[in-house]
Amino acid sequence: MIRHSARVAAVVLFVPALVRAQDLLPSWNEGPAKKSIADFVARVTAEGSPDFVKPAERIAVFDNDGTLWCEQPMYFQFLFAADRIQTMAPRHPDWKEREPFRSVLAGDPKGLIAGGEKGLLEIMAATHAGMTADEFEKIVTDWITTARHPKTGRLYTQMIYQPMLELLAYLRSSGFKTYIVSGGGVEFMRPWVGRVYGIPPEQVVGSRGKLKFEMREGKPVLVKLPEVDLIDDGPGKPVGIHQMIGRRPVMAFGNSDGDLQMLQYTTTGDGPRFGLIVHHTDAEREYAYDRQSDVGRLDKALDEAQRRGWTVVDMKNDWKTVFPAR
Amino acid sequence: MIRHSARVAAVVLFVPALVRAQDLLPSWNEGPAKKSIADFVARVTAEGSPDFVKPAERIAVFDNDGTLWCEQPMYFQFLFAADRIQTMAPRHPDWKEREPFRSVLAGDPKGLIAGGEKGLLEIMAATHAGMTADEFEKIVTDWITTARHPKTGRLYTQMIYQPMLELLAYLRSSGFKTYIVSGGGVEFMRPWVGRVYGIPPEQVVGSRGKLKFEMREGKPVLVKLPEVDLIDDGPGKPVGIHQMIGRRPVMAFGNSDGDLQMLQYTTTGDGPRFGLIVHHTDAEREYAYDRQSDVGRLDKALDEAQRRGWTVVDMKNDWKTVFPAR
Repeated sequence: MIRHSARVAAVVLFVPALVRAQDLLPSWNEGPAKKSIADFVARVTAEGSPDFVKPAERIAVFDNDGTLWCEQPMYFQFLFAADRIQTMAPRHPDWKEREPFRSVLAGDPKGLIAGGEKGLLEIMAATHAGMTADEFEKIVTDWITTARHPKTGRLYTQMIYQPMLELLAYLRSSGFKTYIVSGGGVEFMRPWVGRVYGIPPEQVVGSRGKLKFEMREGKPVLVKLPEVDLIDDGPGKPVGIHQMIGRRPVMAFGNSDGDLQMLQYTTTGDGPRFGLIVHHTDAEREYAYDRQSDVGRLDKALDEAQRRGWTVVDMKNDWKTVFPAR
Repeated sequence: MIRHSARVAAVVLFVPALVRAQDLLPSWNEGPAKKSIADFVARVTAEGSPDFVKPAERIAVFDNDGTLWCEQPMYFQFLFAADRIQTMAPRHPDWKEREPFRSVLAGDPKGLIAGGEKGLLEIMAATHAGMTADEFEKIVTDWITTARHPKTGRLYTQMIYQPMLELLAYLRSSGFKTYIVSGGGVEFMRPWVGRVYGIPPEQVVGSRGKLKFEMREGKPVLVKLPEVDLIDDGPGKPVGIHQMIGRRPVMAFGNSDGDLQMLQYTTTGDGPRFGLIVHHTDAEREYAYDRQSDVGRLDKALDEAQRRGWTVVDMKNDWKTVFPAR
């Protein structure tokens, strides 16, 4: 009798959130992925549910590259860096002869990624340091509002996933604080994620360089140094989360092995937890890649998703649309 | 005529916030300090005011030691570390002969501070690293709910300033997000500041050590390493603010030279900005110290407050009460 009443109560409590999911996730096809999200949100937000999570503890973390926006033909921040190298090259005549700059100037930034971390860090240091934080913000803002994706011709901020925008809004309307936790640079993301995703700068966790406080003409500035402070990728993601958020998320969303530890860290916490992986299966509307890709490789995390019961989104079948209408 | 109407409008708009300040800051005596706070909040929150600040941008940052809670006879986190050294000493027989541990075991932690950074860092590494983040949280929680202040016998969480509690609540009721930005360790503060100040863990910026992600028996843990990642003091405060918050605060509250750069960084931003220093002038109810103190020295920042128009709180005259009633 008690069990029966509890079940009735649960059904009554869960209905509003499920109905809301229908309305608020219109670009998601009906199927196990959408259902798993709506069921979980219903469970943790229904007062009286044994899995109820207090609003203050509703933290949802989202990877950016490949999870909220496209990451092909390569991470957009490296395309930004490559554009910066082109712009800066006249002041650096030696770059024509010197790797890794030569490859970038020759239009082979993808080769650079395959070549490993050392060259990449050199490119990042040359393009992301030696200026103040305010100056860098202006450079990013100029680029992000004008540069266009090589395949679609869209602005990069139009290469975002419509279903994920709806998911962000749905979670916020359910009392979640939505965070970005990305391998991308925190200062590369903050200038535009508010406008594009509705995520304020203080809810962006990312890779970061060291900074130095200085007074210049009586005004304090922060100078970006060419030294890495945190690579917020792989095992760096739980570190970034702990440093910046200070509590274990309840939901985590990723798409690659770079998100493996964030998903492990999130979903092994006590109480209800949710993990989701966006699997890029749609060569026609976007890209199809996983275990063999140099960019956004999804291999170990795909195996682990099965073992740990994480939701895997099949982009081709689960999403009605990929990008927002122009 | 236009000027006159604008003035009338301004008066009308400002009244509610000023009235609110009367109600919400009952432990503040009427005087220039209280008035400067209420006037500023009225200016930036009155819609239509030329100085209106959008709610999303209302960031207020508070130092902790000496600003929100007492820091005498020395920083409470060092008293915690000293207690840890006592507890751990039986497992480290060599400490009896070895500085800086010998001084601490001999009950001279203040001499340690005067002795400089190297010994301090050694004590911090011994007491704050080599365990998981969860284990450390438990140690802090146990200590903070049982240890007592050597002079007053109060719990340390009762050594907080009643007027500042009211100020935190007043600013939050005016749409501000309140942050702690402290030289203290972020992991030392987060376990209790929610309960004591109403500040959630994600709004605490502090000094931090490096962390390492590991799997232990299939469970992910974060291990605290004995290496400093950021000393969030002095010029480190604007760095911590930029890394964690990503926007320049509108209001900053401090009490020592360790807050100088945070106050400079905050108050030289564009638009309306506010800086305040708590001056410890009350030897009877709390402590009186400034330019000569090893703990919480206030010297350069006191001079700069005059030049830059920061509010200086005279604790003895501006505060009706210091600590909350027991």
